[in-house]
Amino acid sequence: MTLPLRPELKGLSPYGAPQEEVAARLNVNENPYSPPPAVVDAIANAVHKAARGLNRYPDRDFMALRVDLARYLGAESHVDFLEPHNIWAANGSNEVMLHLHQAFGGPGRITLTFSPTYSMYPEYARDTLTEYLSLPRREDFHLDIDLSVAAIREHKPTLVIVASPNNPSGTALALDDVKALAAACAEVPGGSVLVVDEAYAEFRRRGVPSAASLLPETPHLVVTRTMSKAFGLAGGRLGYLAASREVVNALTVVRLPYHLSSITQAAARAALAHHLELQAQVDEIRAERDDTVDWLRAQGYTVPETDANFAYFGPLKDRDAVFRGLLDRGVLIRVVGPEGWMRVTIGTAREMAMFRNALLEVTS
Amino acid sequence: MTLPLRPELKGLSPYGAPQEEVAARLNVNENPYSPPPAVVDAIANAVHKAARGLNRYPDRDFMALRVDLARYLGAESHVDFLEPHNIWAANGSNEVMLHLHQAFGGPGRITLTFSPTYSMYPEYARDTLTEYLSLPRREDFHLDIDLSVAAIREHKPTLVIVASPNNPSGTALALDDVKALAAACAEVPGGSVLVVDEAYAEFRRRGVPSAASLLPETPHLVVTRTMSKAFGLAGGRLGYLAASREVVNALTVVRLPYHLSSITQAAARAALAHHLELQAQVDEIRAERDDTVDWLRAQGYTVPETDANFAYFGPLKDRDAVFRGLLDRGVLIRVVGPEGWMRVTIGTAREMAMFRNALLEVTS
Repeated sequence: MTLPLRPELKGLSPYGAPQEEVAARLNVNENPYSPPPAVVDAIANAVHKAARGLNRYPDRDFMALRVDLARYLGAESHVDFLEPHNIWAANGSNEVMLHLHQAFGGPGRITLTFSPTYSMYPEYARDTLTEYLSLPRREDFHLDIDLSVAAIREHKPTLVIVASPNNPSGTALALDDVKALAAACAEVPGGSVLVVDEAYAEFRRRGVPSAASLLPETPHLVVTRTMSKAFGLAGGRLGYLAASREVVNALTVVRLPYHLSSITQAAARAALAHHLELQAQVDEIRAERDDTVDWLRAQGYTVPETDANFAYFGPLKDRDAVFRGLLDRGVLIRVVGPEGWMRVTIGTAREMAMFRNALLEVTS
Repeated sequence: MTLPLRPELKGLSPYGAPQEEVAARLNVNENPYSPPPAVVDAIANAVHKAARGLNRYPDRDFMALRVDLARYLGAESHVDFLEPHNIWAANGSNEVMLHLHQAFGGPGRITLTFSPTYSMYPEYARDTLTEYLSLPRREDFHLDIDLSVAAIREHKPTLVIVASPNNPSGTALALDDVKALAAACAEVPGGSVLVVDEAYAEFRRRGVPSAASLLPETPHLVVTRTMSKAFGLAGGRLGYLAASREVVNALTVVRLPYHLSSITQAAARAALAHHLELQAQVDEIRAERDDTVDWLRAQGYTVPETDANFAYFGPLKDRDAVFRGLLDRGVLIRVVGPEGWMRVTIGTAREMAMFRNALLEVTS
């Protein structure tokens, strides 16, 4: 039998980090805290109510959820202009990014990113036949803004994606840099959409702004968010974005109708109504992160400033050996980015103690 | 501001039938019966349990759900060879079809269908830059099998999609015709995947087979199903397919990781465990359908034999006027397919009485 698999997919493996049962799962930037029982109840009650009408298709435009997301994001990022028509959502940020690529990418077009960065970006491009171009960040993992602006002018990408905080380095982007990128995108003939991926934004340090504040004057700016991280709802698969009405309208054309189930909409709304309880441990995770950074630096590692729920550290002489040694001790972290560097998700205090002890054993 | 919208999307509207609050919603082939209270409870309980672990990503391979789907589909279609690795699922058949196109479609490739048929098929092709070719069915809406086989030989599509029962005509495909199409697909150089879309299969009349029985000897055959129709879970968004392991492996490469939320997986498993209760009214819908067909024919309409939960009827001199007249009377049906034809979903006995009375008034 011959299957007509697209030639560029031949020999590829499915994307995915190991899903292993270990004592400390610190490899995919999950929130270590389960939703509190009251929120679990609220989610189940909302689903119970929604389930009575499951024989009908969901609200294709998920308007009630968009109202709630606009309200939450407006408060979180201290802006007062977000309306439901500025909001889009899908089954995880993955699908939000796919929609962006389906609308604004495609053959003969370029998605530009800055490495090291989130390892799914090339997959969105590949799935939509968009050319993927990733330019290096500086050695300290900050964006080289002159080089980045020059690259936008030279390559004329229709999509520019910058993660802030960046994954895996944790590096946040200054608003002036967002403005510089947006200005360069505005000059691209035919247009260019700047996507600031703020999946980890709720973990940012005090005083670090969200790019959302720039939305009114930047109609080609998109700020993506997720409920997977600070909300602790990775299993709920709800990613979303804020943008101009024009961008959102374009996404409605490429979305598959009824892409968000009634259950997903109900669960997400219940979670948004309880966002304070769900994010109760964000401060604790921030503190644990800062302690982890301090400790790693005290061990002699270089650790970039991080505004996310993970820390990136190096150099390690043999990171694969360190990875295996940690895993042998029940600690699963991530080998990602340039040679010699590893990323550890911030877990509970107990999990981070396990990580520290295991790392000392493995590297001694 | 200029947005770099893909040129072929310019001026397009989002897909979607009206979502209006009317007395009789008979336009999108929903099941008119809500899930019974015991099943609503079971779904909410399953979600309650899953919600405790929502901070973790879902099982990327949804193995437990695949086990349950294999067991259900095996029993439903009277086959004993289905294993979890033969099953794939996604957020609605829409996403299953998108995955098939992402793996086996693309630029320079053709998806072949037979009109009139499901109006989403061209959207899957458009979203994946696959060329879409639809050839006419016979006047009685059956496939012209000689013309279809000749078209496969001539155009060498990498995907051939046939809905059985067909939407909007309700026409089921004989197994001999599936075999003839599969044989033609097997001869396409580079391979061709035959997709039999059995979204409405559970409504088929006794003695009408599922194409699933042909899977073992036909590794390029795909049978798609959904929980939206007979299960009455349109709001739950769970579509799935059965195919060879090789086909399923190809789909794992193009799926976005964690595409099925923990909540969706839990709700679908609870529904599968209660499939008898959920499908308790399928016989009633079948009987109501057959009565509707008889009544429409008695009024002088032509109505093709239907194995689905809808009936297709014509000719109508001014179907748009009939549509508006029915809607004025609280009855929403669908204008679809060739001029003069309309489709009515089979609702409850009360809804079908409303439909009959309204149609008599509007056409008298």
